[in-house]
Amino acid sequence: MTEVKGKSHGRLSVQVSLKPRDLMAEPPRVKNAWRARIVTLFPEAFPGTLGLSITGKALDQGLWALDAIPLRQFGEGKHRNVDDTPAGGGAGMVLRADVVARALGEACHGLPMDREKCPIIYLSPRGKRFDQAMARKWAAAEGVVMICGRFEGVDQRVLDRYQIEEVSLGDFVMTGGEIAAQAMIDATVRLLPGVLGNAASADEESFSDGLLEHPQYTRPQTWEGLEIPAVLNSGNHGEVEKWRRAQSLEITKARRPELHEAWMARQPAPKKKR
Amino acid sequence: MTEVKGKSHGRLSVQVSLKPRDLMAEPPRVKNAWRARIVTLFPEAFPGTLGLSITGKALDQGLWALDAIPLRQFGEGKHRNVDDTPAGGGAGMVLRADVVARALGEACHGLPMDREKCPIIYLSPRGKRFDQAMARKWAAAEGVVMICGRFEGVDQRVLDRYQIEEVSLGDFVMTGGEIAAQAMIDATVRLLPGVLGNAASADEESFSDGLLEHPQYTRPQTWEGLEIPAVLNSGNHGEVEKWRRAQSLEITKARRPELHEAWMARQPAPKKKR
Repeated sequence: MTEVKGKSHGRLSVQVSLKPRDLMAEPPRVKNAWRARIVTLFPEAFPGTLGLSITGKALDQGLWALDAIPLRQFGEGKHRNVDDTPAGGGAGMVLRADVVARALGEACHGLPMDREKCPIIYLSPRGKRFDQAMARKWAAAEGVVMICGRFEGVDQRVLDRYQIEEVSLGDFVMTGGEIAAQAMIDATVRLLPGVLGNAASADEESFSDGLLEHPQYTRPQTWEGLEIPAVLNSGNHGEVEKWRRAQSLEITKARRPELHEAWMARQPAPKKKR
Repeated sequence: MTEVKGKSHGRLSVQVSLKPRDLMAEPPRVKNAWRARIVTLFPEAFPGTLGLSITGKALDQGLWALDAIPLRQFGEGKHRNVDDTPAGGGAGMVLRADVVARALGEACHGLPMDREKCPIIYLSPRGKRFDQAMARKWAAAEGVVMICGRFEGVDQRVLDRYQIEEVSLGDFVMTGGEIAAQAMIDATVRLLPGVLGNAASADEESFSDGLLEHPQYTRPQTWEGLEIPAVLNSGNHGEVEKWRRAQSLEITKARRPELHEAWMARQPAPKKKR
């Protein structure tokens, strides 16, 4: 788990490059695979949990590719400094524009310049909140480049100059961007063709109708005196569907009233009787 | 990174137990440390990124403790089955109530029964959204127990019986709960006493005023023809603060209008002139 995966399974493309590649070994490229490149002070965090289970299997199969770009290698001077104190004063340290720009040069090498085809993301609680629509958009791109922050942030000039999108995992503060990057990549990779089976893809559709999922039950029929609701054993698919929809609506209303309201507003008005 | 950390640094407590502990080796207990216990099909995902940087250093210092409880060990029969088909039909598999209950018995061993002191969390997109207030609440508890889902979910009866809170990382679907658990633990652990220095703690206060952070700049003064805004080099702390506050308001209004509105509503009305 401490090394960046570089396995490939066929479909290699040969790529000519004039640029010397001495800073890091280039993993074999799997042709046309969706690609995530992560600029980070902790390259050993990758693939981490993404190397396990469904996302890990897809990574081994070459359905997507992951490169961690060690920010430290692009630092200044003998000590490879990457940060400095904030202009205007204040606590913490800020990642330098020139250092981040050099790392981005490496990260974006060979990827489309068009930000629609390959967005550059800076993970930050200041950003737009990540959601399923963003995961779908990224999955439709050729890949993403992500910058994981630590400390107080990144010099704003590099964000402006490279049209970097700030994206937030949610309204909370983390010690760094690495786990946030993994969460977003997980949500994106599962949408790539071939990663999930058809059955699981259907689930995605059910989420996208904007309601929370109904409760689930499975064997044993009786557990600690509690039974599975009778309707689920009735064999009447219509009734099962009706019950599940009612449960979804109830749970959504209780837990996420704003989603429930939005769902209600989208429903067609009932037809008038003549 | 593939093993659960069991290091300790002093302050060990001796604990008498009548329960045989043959299923997993008990790591040495660090007295009174905040504790996360994670029920998962992928125990090798932990500590993962939590074992690095600030959270990893705090883990090594015994400021918090982490145990991964392998769900598979509590499975049924020779194949240790943990799931079964959903009652009422449908795609995917559902984690069995009896299997999850046995794993929770292990996970909750020695922890307070009071859910305020030790919440049990099921990570699910159906849950309440995780936020900074929740991180603060958990950091004030003695620890948390988390269940990482995979597949379609968990039998509802075990959620009801054990008063398990469903919590969501955000409005997106992931392949499992492991990365979500890591994100929430990261946000919680950084709030524990001693984990961050004082300087960084101040940052947390600034987030909690409900506005997004102002932009940051650092050396070099000129980068690719772009200058650091002059006010930040003025040495006038009042002007710097005014500029930063104005930038925070502007960015919050543009990116998160709902946060901006809530902030405006909290401001005291301007005093009337006589």
